[in-house]
Amino acid sequence: MKKTILILGGEGFIGRNLIDELKDNCNIISFDLKKNVKSDNNIKFYKGNFTLKQDLEIVFKENKVDIVIHALSTTIPSNSNENIIYDINSNLIATVELLDLMRKYSTSKIIFISSGGTVYGLLNPKQSVVTEDYATNPICSYGIVKLSIEKYIYLYNYLYGTDYLVLRFANPYGKYHRSDKQGLINVILNKIINHETLTIWGDGSTVRDYVYINDCASIVGILIEKNISNEIINIGSGTGHSVNDILKIIEKQIGNFKINRLEARNFDVPNLVLNNSKLQSIINYEFTNIEEGIINTYNWLKNHE
Amino acid sequence: MKKTILILGGEGFIGRNLIDELKDNCNIISFDLKKNVKSDNNIKFYKGNFTLKQDLEIVFKENKVDIVIHALSTTIPSNSNENIIYDINSNLIATVELLDLMRKYSTSKIIFISSGGTVYGLLNPKQSVVTEDYATNPICSYGIVKLSIEKYIYLYNYLYGTDYLVLRFANPYGKYHRSDKQGLINVILNKIINHETLTIWGDGSTVRDYVYINDCASIVGILIEKNISNEIINIGSGTGHSVNDILKIIEKQIGNFKINRLEARNFDVPNLVLNNSKLQSIINYEFTNIEEGIINTYNWLKNHE
Repeated sequence: MKKTILILGGEGFIGRNLIDELKDNCNIISFDLKKNVKSDNNIKFYKGNFTLKQDLEIVFKENKVDIVIHALSTTIPSNSNENIIYDINSNLIATVELLDLMRKYSTSKIIFISSGGTVYGLLNPKQSVVTEDYATNPICSYGIVKLSIEKYIYLYNYLYGTDYLVLRFANPYGKYHRSDKQGLINVILNKIINHETLTIWGDGSTVRDYVYINDCASIVGILIEKNISNEIINIGSGTGHSVNDILKIIEKQIGNFKINRLEARNFDVPNLVLNNSKLQSIINYEFTNIEEGIINTYNWLKNHE
Repeated sequence: MKKTILILGGEGFIGRNLIDELKDNCNIISFDLKKNVKSDNNIKFYKGNFTLKQDLEIVFKENKVDIVIHALSTTIPSNSNENIIYDINSNLIATVELLDLMRKYSTSKIIFISSGGTVYGLLNPKQSVVTEDYATNPICSYGIVKLSIEKYIYLYNYLYGTDYLVLRFANPYGKYHRSDKQGLINVILNKIINHETLTIWGDGSTVRDYVYINDCASIVGILIEKNISNEIINIGSGTGHSVNDILKIIEKQIGNFKINRLEARNFDVPNLVLNNSKLQSIINYEFTNIEEGIINTYNWLKNHE
C-alpha cells in the first residue's frame, strides 16, 4: 500500500523537489502558507500557518499520515538573529506542537530536514570536513533552533517511540530555488538570467559543500524505501568548492556577469564540508558532478522565468 | 571596587549558597519569585517573575550590574517533559530576554548554572565519565533547554562580546536544599529528620556524581576572582557513588531509615560522573569528602528545621 506523506513546507524549494521525487510512489499532502504549485490531482494541498496548531491539526484529523517530512522554516540564517524569540516561537515551539499532534494521531515517523550548514557553526580551523558527531556551536539562531528541534525529536523517540530521521542538508542548489537571499549558485544563475549585478561577501575563499537538490530528493526517497530510522545523517556531496571556484565554473559553463564585492558577514561559517561516509555506508550514492548540476539548474531557471 | 552581582534564583538552593559565599566580597542583588531569606542589609532583594521582562528590567535600570549569575529554573528534570512548551517559554525565551537586557544595560558577563546531570543525557554504556565535549542527547526537556541556553549564550558572545561561563553542575547536595522531589542525599536526610519513609526508584545501582554545594559555591567564587571567561566547565567531584553506596554511608554515619523501592523512571540517566580535569587544570581544587559533606548537611538540616 502507498504511504501517505505530509510535507511541511511543500511549496518551498526543498518541499517542491521532494514532491516531484515522491509523488509517483506515495500519497502526498502538502502543507504551506501559500500555494505556488499548479494543482495536481495526485497531491492534496492544505493552506495553513505552521505556528497555528489548529491549522496543522486539520490535516491529521482528515488524513491518516504515515510520515511527516518537516522542511519548513519561518526564518533563514541571515535574518534569524534579528528576532530570536520569533525564531524560537515559530519554529521550535511549533515543532513541539507538531510532535504532540503526531503522537495524538499515531503518526509514527518524522523526517526532519536539518541544516548541516548551520548546526556545526564555528569549526576547529584545522578541520572543516565534519562528521555527524562533530561539536555543535551555531553562530545563528537558525542553527540553534534546528539543533534544539533535533534534540526534541530524539527525546520524543526516547519517551514515546516516534521514529525519526534527521537529515543535515549541506548547501543545496537546483530547480525551484528563487530566493535572492541565500543559496550562492541559484542567486548567481538568477542574476545572470535577469542581467543583474551579483553581490559577494568576503574574498571568495569560503568553502562550502554544494549539493544538487535532485540528489538530496533521490536520497530521501531511497532512505524512505529502505526504512532507515533513528539516525542523524549528513546529506552533502563530501566535496568542497570555494565561492571563487563556483564563479569560475559558472563563467566557463555559462558566461560572464558583474560582481559587487562586500565585506564578509559575521553569521557565515568560514569553511564547511560535510563528511558523507555515514550516508555512503547506508546507500552508496553517486552524486551529480557540479558542472552538470549547474547547467541543469541554469536551463531549468531559464525555461521557468 | 566591589563587583555587583545579580543572582537570578537567589532564594533557591544554589542561589542561597552562592550568596553566602560571595556576599563579603561583592555587592549582591538577589532576584526571585518569593523571599525566603531573612533580610540582610548587604543584600538587595528584588521580588519578580523571571518570565516577565519588565520585572527583570527594573533591576538593570536601578543598578549597574557587573555579572549575572543565572541559577533560576521554572522546571525540574522530573516534571519538564509534562509541559515542554512552558519549559521553553519560561526558561529559554526568558533567558534570551535576559541576554538582550544585559546588552541594553552593558552588563558584560553571565555565569550560567547549567546541568551536568541532564545535558549529556543517554551515554555510551562503556563511558560514564564525561568531559565537556561529550555528545549531548538529553532525555528530558529540562536538559534540552539548559543546552539551548548554553548555545544562545555562546551566540551572544560571538555576536556581541558578552562574556560567559557555563558551569555544568553535577548533583549538588548540602544546606538550604529542602526539595522532596530531587537531590537524593538531601531527600534522604530530610526523611530521616522527619521520620518518613524514603522512596528509591530502581535497584540502587545508578551511579551519580554527588558534589557538596559548599565546594560548588567556593569554586564559583574562585572562578570569578580569577576572571575565567568563555568556557564550559564541568563542576563535579569526579567520583561516582551508587544510590546503594549513599544509603550505606548515611546508615553508617547517621542511622537507619525505612525504604520503599519502586521501578526505575525513564528520565533518569543510567550512570553519570563528570570528568573534572578541565576545572582542575584551572584551579586545582580539593573537594570535601562525601562522608564529611553528608554529616555537615545533616547537622545543618537538623538545626534549621
